[in-house]
Amino acid sequence: MTTLSTDILAELEKQAIELPSWAFGNSGTRFKVYGTPGTPRDPFEKIADAAQVQKYTKLAPSVALHIPWDKVSDYSELRRFAQDHGVELGTINSNTFQDDDYKFGALTNEDPAVRRKAIDHHLECIEIMNQTGSRDLKIWLAEGSNYPGQADIRGRQDRLQESLQEIYAHIGDDQRLVLEYKFFEPSFYHTDVPDWGTSYVQVAALGDKALVCLDTGHHAPGTNIEFIVMQLLRLGKLGSFDFNSRFYADDDLIVGAADPFQLFRIIYEVIRGGGYGNPDVAFMLDQCHNVEDKIPGQIRSVLNVQEMTARALLVDTAALSIAQKSGDVLAANAVFMDAFYTDVRPALAEWRESRGLAGDPMAAFAASGYLATIAEERVGGTQAGWGA
Amino acid sequence: MTTLSTDILAELEKQAIELPSWAFGNSGTRFKVYGTPGTPRDPFEKIADAAQVQKYTKLAPSVALHIPWDKVSDYSELRRFAQDHGVELGTINSNTFQDDDYKFGALTNEDPAVRRKAIDHHLECIEIMNQTGSRDLKIWLAEGSNYPGQADIRGRQDRLQESLQEIYAHIGDDQRLVLEYKFFEPSFYHTDVPDWGTSYVQVAALGDKALVCLDTGHHAPGTNIEFIVMQLLRLGKLGSFDFNSRFYADDDLIVGAADPFQLFRIIYEVIRGGGYGNPDVAFMLDQCHNVEDKIPGQIRSVLNVQEMTARALLVDTAALSIAQKSGDVLAANAVFMDAFYTDVRPALAEWRESRGLAGDPMAAFAASGYLATIAEERVGGTQAGWGA
Amino acid sequence: MTTLSTDILAELEKQAIELPSWAFGNSGTRFKVYGTPGTPRDPFEKIADAAQVQKYTKLAPSVALHIPWDKVSDYSELRRFAQDHGVELGTINSNTFQDDDYKFGALTNEDPAVRRKAIDHHLECIEIMNQTGSRDLKIWLAEGSNYPGQADIRGRQDRLQESLQEIYAHIGDDQRLVLEYKFFEPSFYHTDVPDWGTSYVQVAALGDKALVCLDTGHHAPGTNIEFIVMQLLRLGKLGSFDFNSRFYADDDLIVGAADPFQLFRIIYEVIRGGGYGNPDVAFMLDQCHNVEDKIPGQIRSVLNVQEMTARALLVDTAALSIAQKSGDVLAANAVFMDAFYTDVRPALAEWRESRGLAGDPMAAFAASGYLATIAEERVGGTQAGWGA
Amino acid sequence: MTTLSTDILAELEKQAIELPSWAFGNSGTRFKVYGTPGTPRDPFEKIADAAQVQKYTKLAPSVALHIPWDKVSDYSELRRFAQDHGVELGTINSNTFQDDDYKFGALTNEDPAVRRKAIDHHLECIEIMNQTGSRDLKIWLAEGSNYPGQADIRGRQDRLQESLQEIYAHIGDDQRLVLEYKFFEPSFYHTDVPDWGTSYVQVAALGDKALVCLDTGHHAPGTNIEFIVMQLLRLGKLGSFDFNSRFYADDDLIVGAADPFQLFRIIYEVIRGGGYGNPDVAFMLDQCHNVEDKIPGQIRSVLNVQEMTARALLVDTAALSIAQKSGDVLAANAVFMDAFYTDVRPALAEWRESRGLAGDPMAAFAASGYLATIAEERVGGTQAGWGA
Repeated sequence: MTTLSTDILAELEKQAIELPSWAFGNSGTRFKVYGTPGTPRDPFEKIADAAQVQKYTKLAPSVALHIPWDKVSDYSELRRFAQDHGVELGTINSNTFQDDDYKFGALTNEDPAVRRKAIDHHLECIEIMNQTGSRDLKIWLAEGSNYPGQADIRGRQDRLQESLQEIYAHIGDDQRLVLEYKFFEPSFYHTDVPDWGTSYVQVAALGDKALVCLDTGHHAPGTNIEFIVMQLLRLGKLGSFDFNSRFYADDDLIVGAADPFQLFRIIYEVIRGGGYGNPDVAFMLDQCHNVEDKIPGQIRSVLNVQEMTARALLVDTAALSIAQKSGDVLAANAVFMDAFYTDVRPALAEWRESRGLAGDPMAAFAASGYLATIAEERVGGTQAGWGA
Repeated sequence: MTTLSTDILAELEKQAIELPSWAFGNSGTRFKVYGTPGTPRDPFEKIADAAQVQKYTKLAPSVALHIPWDKVSDYSELRRFAQDHGVELGTINSNTFQDDDYKFGALTNEDPAVRRKAIDHHLECIEIMNQTGSRDLKIWLAEGSNYPGQADIRGRQDRLQESLQEIYAHIGDDQRLVLEYKFFEPSFYHTDVPDWGTSYVQVAALGDKALVCLDTGHHAPGTNIEFIVMQLLRLGKLGSFDFNSRFYADDDLIVGAADPFQLFRIIYEVIRGGGYGNPDVAFMLDQCHNVEDKIPGQIRSVLNVQEMTARALLVDTAALSIAQKSGDVLAANAVFMDAFYTDVRPALAEWRESRGLAGDPMAAFAASGYLATIAEERVGGTQAGWGA
Repeated sequence: MTTLSTDILAELEKQAIELPSWAFGNSGTRFKVYGTPGTPRDPFEKIADAAQVQKYTKLAPSVALHIPWDKVSDYSELRRFAQDHGVELGTINSNTFQDDDYKFGALTNEDPAVRRKAIDHHLECIEIMNQTGSRDLKIWLAEGSNYPGQADIRGRQDRLQESLQEIYAHIGDDQRLVLEYKFFEPSFYHTDVPDWGTSYVQVAALGDKALVCLDTGHHAPGTNIEFIVMQLLRLGKLGSFDFNSRFYADDDLIVGAADPFQLFRIIYEVIRGGGYGNPDVAFMLDQCHNVEDKIPGQIRSVLNVQEMTARALLVDTAALSIAQKSGDVLAANAVFMDAFYTDVRPALAEWRESRGLAGDPMAAFAASGYLATIAEERVGGTQAGWGA
Repeated sequence: MTTLSTDILAELEKQAIELPSWAFGNSGTRFKVYGTPGTPRDPFEKIADAAQVQKYTKLAPSVALHIPWDKVSDYSELRRFAQDHGVELGTINSNTFQDDDYKFGALTNEDPAVRRKAIDHHLECIEIMNQTGSRDLKIWLAEGSNYPGQADIRGRQDRLQESLQEIYAHIGDDQRLVLEYKFFEPSFYHTDVPDWGTSYVQVAALGDKALVCLDTGHHAPGTNIEFIVMQLLRLGKLGSFDFNSRFYADDDLIVGAADPFQLFRIIYEVIRGGGYGNPDVAFMLDQCHNVEDKIPGQIRSVLNVQEMTARALLVDTAALSIAQKSGDVLAANAVFMDAFYTDVRPALAEWRESRGLAGDPMAAFAASGYLATIAEERVGGTQAGWGA
């Protein structure tokens, strides 16, 4: 059996992946959202579910919130609830895509009153961050237009910078603003932050506490994502990841499910560029569990990241460097593939057990009966979703 | 000014484009559906709105229904209502993607009881067709899976054929079954009818009354759609079009909005292959008006098709053929582009006026005050949408 | 260590992957073709190189020829040469894309004289097949147009069928015609056989001895290739594979290099559909080794196919079926992934040794000094390439 | 007939599009390069051909050179020759993709000696620029890798910056360095400058005389190119365009041929962002005429740009702005489309005639007999191409 060195295990010890509260609510497509018995009805229940992932894996110590989906009257109560369940509150995600006022833009809107409202929403998020102890304000700018001519895309870019400037001015010394880019959807002609370059120039104009968020599902077909990881790390601007996977568009599937080798290459570049075990680079999931169970879906996801990290740590970088320098293409590729093809799962199971965890977290969770319990207990109320 | 010959005008006279009832209801993305004052609350109001498109353009004499979205207790009443408003009821669209039972497939489901239910739904649709006088049953098979291994894709293909056989057996002598394909969404790993080839082999195995429906937004990036039009016409299996346009995925934008030249090429191949003015090939819209007004959105759409048809009819096919045969690439392309670049709009406006229509249907509709009227009248109730 | 059951080993014993003679010559892009010392100068040297792959792997018992690149005066001599080196001559590939006459098409050309020439070329290929003992005539139809309007795409489709009919009439009782499709390149607007559907309808119209060739690099971005494998097997029309891999277009990289999980899924569907160990489905490589050494590039390729076949054979189909039928998405996916993630390499190495082969064929070949020998011996002459 | 205002004609008067010398030589795909009678054998003949485009259109006053393809012993002689033919020498394009030393990179190579050679090549190009009076050094960095692991992509990025720094230090006060990005090809896994963001960060680190070159064919499928135009103009970093068009990859078709509406949108954003009639933004073609005649192919191309510029100048920006601000999607889109659909060709022909040019430059060139003359005169020698 492949063994993992103590150095590698020490690296794996550092791994922490933030879970999105909304992954525990219902999600779907524009055609249908399927509900499931036991789906949380409020932020507390989402956190309770997220805590299960942490309980069985010790990989998911924090939970990101989405405002307004996770608004509560008392954030310190929510924070204590989380801590009582063994997790912390993490990134605060703003929402400028579900209010009728935002139909034609929020931070980019032609109307100053709408921009004001959108900026104020972010200031409210920062206020919540102060209460939750969150470091990061994440902005996914779901703004754009559907038809050529509909919008003045240049004016919107300038207004975006102005709006961000005002928000950034309120970011605390220990806080950060991370700006997520997305190729398309919900807009179908132009998106105001469609690519890493746009996110980069927008945050670079703000200052050191503004960084880029890379969602692995938000790129054009064929994009070499690990290259972008490399570049953003090189520029000191990779603030966080939203992990998920895709075959077509922003499918939001379980990370590693669609193209495990791509996940390997991404994590390899994170390590290569000094982004692993580095608090400046946050790892987070952003997925939809449309047809599979949500809690085990999240457990599977963090395990996928862990397993692929172990593989990436196995790369014999000395041998790789020699092969690269000598132009031996097949040898270099072989070093890379050898790590990818190594089955680290038994060694990881053993390591988990040595730390008091179940070797197979999926099986342990299934055996716990938690899903049946919540299905029974959570009766009535409205299942949480995206509020679309 | 460019004039359109009497031959071309005679061809344009034949044009009929079916409208989808659901285009008049609200639609959106998984993130948000924006409502609009005046949105229909029931099938009658949808038809009343659709009739406005016909009133101003004489291009849209029929309206497709979607079951169960357009279920009514008395279809002959609905039919009379339509006729009183100057339109006919058209294609019946089935729905196997919004019932909890269909989470893992309908006509392809592993469970015979679910397949039974899905087949029965189609038999009910055929029964409705008998009452509405509809010719076509359109099946968009929104089935598939999200994860590799989730489904036995081969078994599903065989079950699909079995289910279709049973439905087809109920198709009347003057009725047709058209099977729509789609590249992806709502499923994100595999779709049971993802391409024209699959739709073709499935309907070819059924018989002459089964044909393919080509939705212009349902292809992989870069696909040459006019080639597929050519091939399906050549095979005698192009049953109908769902027109719309796209920049990225199945954006469902106004037909001709994203790539007008592509629409030109598609219509050129329709004409070239004998599909124009041919009742065997149905023209229909299938669009979403997420951010624009719905009725003028539909008027714009049928005008786009009409204008592009006029351009395609302008192609000097004799000159084109000579250039093609002689290998004069630039000359052949120039003949093609000359027709595309010709501004047919003034001549069409004049022709409309000669037929008692407004030269500018968009302006005439806007001036009618209809939108304000329905916004005022349609108070209360639930605005129609996709029921997602 | 994972062990491979005797059943699986028995299956692996059946594996045979045909090598393309042209993979041993130089190849490159339109920008540059790099040469390498020792590159073969004639078909005999190509076969000698191909025989090295067979020697070290026992996976590659035959070599495909390309006419006219591999024309020789005496094919029985070439056949004997091959057999003396331990390999057979395999598929004959025709070429209708490098003659000035074919600039605007070969089998589809408007000019009957050009079509005649192209048909005659294929009859010559069949004559060569009779001498080489080859079963398959493979036609990659590299025809199309670059500009809209340039070609009458419908007329070309009809002429293609006529030309193929004439060729098919000469196919012997034990011979087959396989028609390869390709999304684009060398043509950039339309390609006459761009997708599996077109290849299917063309060969279905010919008869039972005409089948489809699936080149894994010839699809639109995002295409689910294993679905096509499933469908063609279901239709009894999957004649052969051209294996390679791609990140962007028709990159012709080493099979399994770009997306190993996709290769796993493809081979799983081959097995699922009865295409494995089935002489009706030919496995072949079609790759370019632009920057890596050619012989080890081919060794790496056949090993990749073997390793992925072993993984696909490991799928616990009983457990998979239970999970699929019960709608347990995560369980079904887990069964699938478990096989993929299993490291079969040590067991395969052991098995190779038990059969008298080197456990590590790459290392054994490198140690043989063959590359240095041919670099020294093959001095003068013109290195083989594509003749572009 | 649509008339073009004197304001618009004054704008059109400013238009100048640089031609690439290599467009007059042979080009093709990796499968085949077709030759044509009369193809230039040396840089002088290429310039003579380019001068024909200028003669008939007055749109193409300069010709870009490619080193080493256009190396001559005396550049002042070449410059005089050009001026005698009515054109100037323009951008100097370097070449780091055709020397065996560059197989694994040039400016990014692990080997300092290879980087030295590549840097020296650029210094030689700058020296040529001093002799030709060229302003711009254009670097298309055709470097990358084919297999994961083959290259240290981070190290290459750093070395690229170092190499560019050294080249930039030699750029004269009136000279500029423009860095072109490309999604993929000739490399198939990673490219060192794959997107606008990478080009931007590389040139931003150099200084004010370093800018981005946008080739319209070098993007991922679905990319909104006009958005990038907007962004680079906003950042003051859009140095030049390489115009062409594509359906699939880097097809290098005639600009405007594949998606005329996209060309319209691009030019609209150029105008919107102050890039039109602005010497800081160079317009250039970079195309291949694989199957069509080269000189008329270039004439067609510059006319396409001119016609689309006229359309873009017709946009009623006041009406557009009102519609945009009011959220009237259909009205805004209609203003945009109205300009696009306006047939400016008759007015342009009239204007040409008023300036002493032929109204139809394509016909005038055809009538001149130039192609027949060069086919007759240019006998012997080697036709120019890419030297691949």
